[in-house]
This record gives sequence, structure tokens and C-alpha cells, in this order.
Amino acid sequence: MTQPIPMVEIWRGDLLESQHMGHAVVCDADGQVVESWGDDEKVIYPRSSCKMLQALPLIESGAADAYGLTPEHLALSCASHQGAAIHTDRVQVWLNDLGLSVSDFRCGPQKPSDKDAHEALVRAGKEPCQIHNNCSGKHSGFLTLNKHLGTGSEYGEVDHPVQRAARASFEEMTGETAEFYGIDGCSAPNFSTSVTGLARAMARMAKPSGTGVRAQAATRLVDAMRAHPDLVAGEGRACTELMRAMDGKVAIKTGAEAVFVAILPEQGLGMALKIVDGGTRAAEAAIAALLVKYGVLDANHPMARKRMHGPILNWNGLNTGHIRISPAFI
Amino acid sequence: MTQPIPMVEIWRGDLLESQHMGHAVVCDADGQVVESWGDDEKVIYPRSSCKMLQALPLIESGAADAYGLTPEHLALSCASHQGAAIHTDRVQVWLNDLGLSVSDFRCGPQKPSDKDAHEALVRAGKEPCQIHNNCSGKHSGFLTLNKHLGTGSEYGEVDHPVQRAARASFEEMTGETAEFYGIDGCSAPNFSTSVTGLARAMARMAKPSGTGVRAQAATRLVDAMRAHPDLVAGEGRACTELMRAMDGKVAIKTGAEAVFVAILPEQGLGMALKIVDGGTRAAEAAIAALLVKYGVLDANHPMARKRMHGPILNWNGLNTGHIRISPAFI
Repeated sequence: MTQPIPMVEIWRGDLLESQHMGHAVVCDADGQVVESWGDDEKVIYPRSSCKMLQALPLIESGAADAYGLTPEHLALSCASHQGAAIHTDRVQVWLNDLGLSVSDFRCGPQKPSDKDAHEALVRAGKEPCQIHNNCSGKHSGFLTLNKHLGTGSEYGEVDHPVQRAARASFEEMTGETAEFYGIDGCSAPNFSTSVTGLARAMARMAKPSGTGVRAQAATRLVDAMRAHPDLVAGEGRACTELMRAMDGKVAIKTGAEAVFVAILPEQGLGMALKIVDGGTRAAEAAIAALLVKYGVLDANHPMARKRMHGPILNWNGLNTGHIRISPAFI
Repeated sequence: MTQPIPMVEIWRGDLLESQHMGHAVVCDADGQVVESWGDDEKVIYPRSSCKMLQALPLIESGAADAYGLTPEHLALSCASHQGAAIHTDRVQVWLNDLGLSVSDFRCGPQKPSDKDAHEALVRAGKEPCQIHNNCSGKHSGFLTLNKHLGTGSEYGEVDHPVQRAARASFEEMTGETAEFYGIDGCSAPNFSTSVTGLARAMARMAKPSGTGVRAQAATRLVDAMRAHPDLVAGEGRACTELMRAMDGKVAIKTGAEAVFVAILPEQGLGMALKIVDGGTRAAEAAIAALLVKYGVLDANHPMARKRMHGPILNWNGLNTGHIRISPAFI
């Protein structure tokens, strides 16, 4: 088994303070590995980085059209949003349109990571609810599919038709049978894949074969993500800032425990990486470096520099250190 | 150079999802390495884990007695507190007693990590100030020493007498000349040491030689930390919970970027560890495992189990995974 390689360094003064190791793969639409670092067969949970795969049945089943979902809905179904008003207002309307309520969600309540949204809740004396959960868009997609299928209320259980459909799409796109599954932060199952499998799935999202239902669904989801980077994550977040920096040409998505993927339609490529220790800052730096290497992100764009170089500021706003992409990586 | 070893594993379902590598050393009071893992000569920044070393001049100079500092003050001078009322109220009184104000601090404003304190600020429409900074106790100690010495207001600068004194104590205790320094989160300089140097310093805090000024100062600081675990960190925090679990027999302290130290007076031992990737969850698990191994923490104590085993709960409170100490470590 190939070992992970050093990918991202954290410097303070003239000393390398911390270091992150990882695995990364770039695949083409034929599913072939174009380039890899570390162990390309490493089995991981993609976590939220695979939400666009989990959303394929929402379109392919006809549910999205039956309920008049727009690109904004589709972007939210692929999102790990931060519970800002632009996210929660839209999720609330979506629920209303389905004739459902917050209590139909199974994702659990989560404090919004959006500062303004959180402070508004505190001032109003309210607790966060399931709409604020970063996965409430994905779960709105699950609920839409569930209503369309007419299946039972426990749509998050691994043997429920909604999750069976999500698993089937996931395995078809990765080209692998999932060896493991875990319960995600939002209580939905998350299936394992190799890093190569995840990159392959992203390449197939980037350049689907044929013109069938799968190809149409993939293109609609990727286009929705690229058109609405603010809905996929939120202000200040890597997904949103880097997608904007690439003028909507590329869709990218983070996952918990330091997974990151990218979908490059013009190049017909997919990327996937996992930082071994789960450090999100390193996953963000590493995906930016890969996007620069493949010519879709300007190395001098402020948002690229922010993730790849820092600076690391302290409570007084002083520059205390910087990020560096490890020479062993790129 | 010896490589770091696997120390802490993060499992989800039946898959090892993330893994943390590290270096650790146990030293005795003669400064000899008792046991080590990874590279015992690895040079690190101890960050906040060395606050008790930085506080030695506060006592040795006579400043602490001149200003009537109690064990509570001394515990706060070694603290990375979370800005709860029990911390900020005491820091405010300390400042008042010195005839100084918040604007004399140089640590910068920081949002309290204590939930109640943060929400109270939001409801009052107030911004966090420098008193909420997790280092405001350390900086109160610096200000006390500064006033006693009659030196200039920029007490955080590396060539200021307050920082020169802190550096001298640090180097005497680690037994090493600091090769690097960086600017810490609170803008004070932080000096480098090997992991062995840091463990050696902690052993000397645990069992100081002789009965001189240094020995008295070390014992007073360690006793203050052990007597006031709630002031050293706060509710829910590893330092506080693990010190309580050991009935005040051992002083422990976290540092940013996953450093952890322990001072074992009865055994005359010091411990220091650094997780390479800066992941705090792993430093907390690893120090708990070391404390269990050396017989000062009950492996079955709920607070030991919390750090060493989890469970990892999701937004619905479901058990989604667990922590495991790597077999390669302990």
C-alpha cells in the first residue's frame, strides 16, 4: 500500500509548525487515472463531497420536474450551506411547497455557522432547528424524492428506497461496490469508495457519456452548482470563493474530515482528495493547488492565494505565519 | 530523523476514517528521557502549553507578592480560558487592582468560546474585547510584571524586559536555547524547543531542584493550576475535565496546533506531545492515554473515556463513530 504524501505545510515564523498528509487522484471521463499522489486505492468516506451523486435520483426519478425544482433547488440539494438567510429562506419555501414541515426532516438541528444568522437566533431567543442544518438542502431533495415515490417517513434509513437509490447512483458513478457505510453528521448513510472511485465519479459528472437520463441529471446538477456558488456553501467559504474565482467554470465540493472534489466540464476531468488527519484547512489548500496545476484557477487570484498561502492572522490581525503547498505534492 | 508514529484513530462505522501522527516524550526531573515515541528531538512551538513557564518571572521577580496575587490569579496566568464569566470577571478585577484598563492589553479581542458568555454579548449588542481573549490571564500576569518592573507599555514585544524574562525562564527550564520564535495568537512571542525540552521543563515544574526562588515559583504555579482546573480552561474542556478526573494530582495544559503537556508532582515526571497535523482532538486523546499509562488517570473514568474513545455523536445525538488510541502508540 502506497503511503500518503506531505501535501500542506503550516509555518509560523521560520519553523514548520504543522504538516498534513494526503491522497489525491485526477481521473478522466473514461475512468482512467490521469495523475495520482499517495494511495489512489485508499478507501474513504466522501462525506458531503458526494452530495451531487446522492442527488442524481432526485432528477432521474422525475421528482425534480414533478415538483418544479429550479437550479437553485438543485444547488441546495448538493450544498453544505452555513445556515444563512439565503439558504434557510429557500429551504423553508421548499418545505412549504412540498406541504411538509421542519419536523419531517431527519437531519437534526445544527447551529448556523453563518455569524449573522446565529446572532439573529440568539437575539430572538430561538434555538437552531433542522432547517439550519448544513445538509437541509440535501434532505429537502430526499424529501422531494420520497414524496414522489410515496415511500415512508424514515427516508434516512439505509434500506429506505431513497437511500437505496442514492447508493445505486453512487456505486454506478464510482464504478465500485461500497465496502463500508457510516452514519453521517446528518444521520443519512455515507458509502465508502476509493479516492480513485470518487475522482472517477466526478469525471463522469464533468463529462457524462451519452445523452440519457443520467447524463442530463449530471449536467443539470453540475450547472446548478456552478451557477449558484453562494448556495453551495456561503460567504467566506472555500467552495463559494473558489468557484467564483473560476467564473463558474468548475464545480467543487468539500466533505467533512478533509475530503474535497472538483468537476471540470471543459477538461472532462474529475478530482478527489483526502487529507489523512481530517484537517479541512489542508483539503482547501490542496484542492486549490490542484485547480491551479490544471489551469482552471489563477494562482494569483486572491481567493487562491488565501487558501494556498494564507496569511495566518492572529487576534490583533498580525501576520503570524503562512500556508505552503508541500514540494512533495505540487 | 525518526518519523512520527500513528497515535490516534478516528473511526466511522467499520472504517478508519482519519488518523493522527505525533511525537511524545516523558522525562524525569533529572531531565532524562524515560520513554519516547516518534522523534524526541522534534523542534516545535509549545504555544499555550508553556504558559506556566512564561509565568515564572511573575513570581520570581516579587511582582506576584507585591500585588497580592492569589492562587486564582496564578491559575489564570497559566490559562487558556474560554471567556466565561468566572474568567472575565476575575481578569477585570485584576486589571482594576493594577489601576489599568482593557486598552493596556496587547492580546487582541477574541470571541469567547463559552456559549453563555458569547450569547450574553450578542444579546447586549456588544463586541468581544481583549478581556475575552483566552490569553487575558497570561497577559494580566505580563502587565503585573511590567508594572512591577516599571518598563514600557509594549510588553508583548520580543525585546521587552517582560518577554526577555519569559524567554530566559523558558530556556532554563527546557535546557535548550530556542532556535526559533513565532508570534502567537495573542501577539506575544512563542519560543521553540524540542519535544524533549518541553517534557524536561514539565518534569522540572513537577519536581523542582532545591528550595530556591525557582523551586518555590514552580510549585506555586503547579499548585494553583491543580487547585483551579476551572480557571485553567473551562467547562467541557479537556484540561479542566481531565485535571478534575485526577483529583488535582496532576497539572495539564493544552497548546494550539495540538501540543499537550502534563506535570506529575508525585512521580516527578513531565510529559509533552505534539500531533503533527495540529489536530486538537488527537492531542487530547493522546495525553489522556499517556496519563492512563502512567497510572494517574483511571482508564474507566468518563472523562478519560470521552477523550480516548468518544463516542462521536452527530446532530441527532446518534453514535456515528469512535476514537481509538493507535496500537503503535500505547
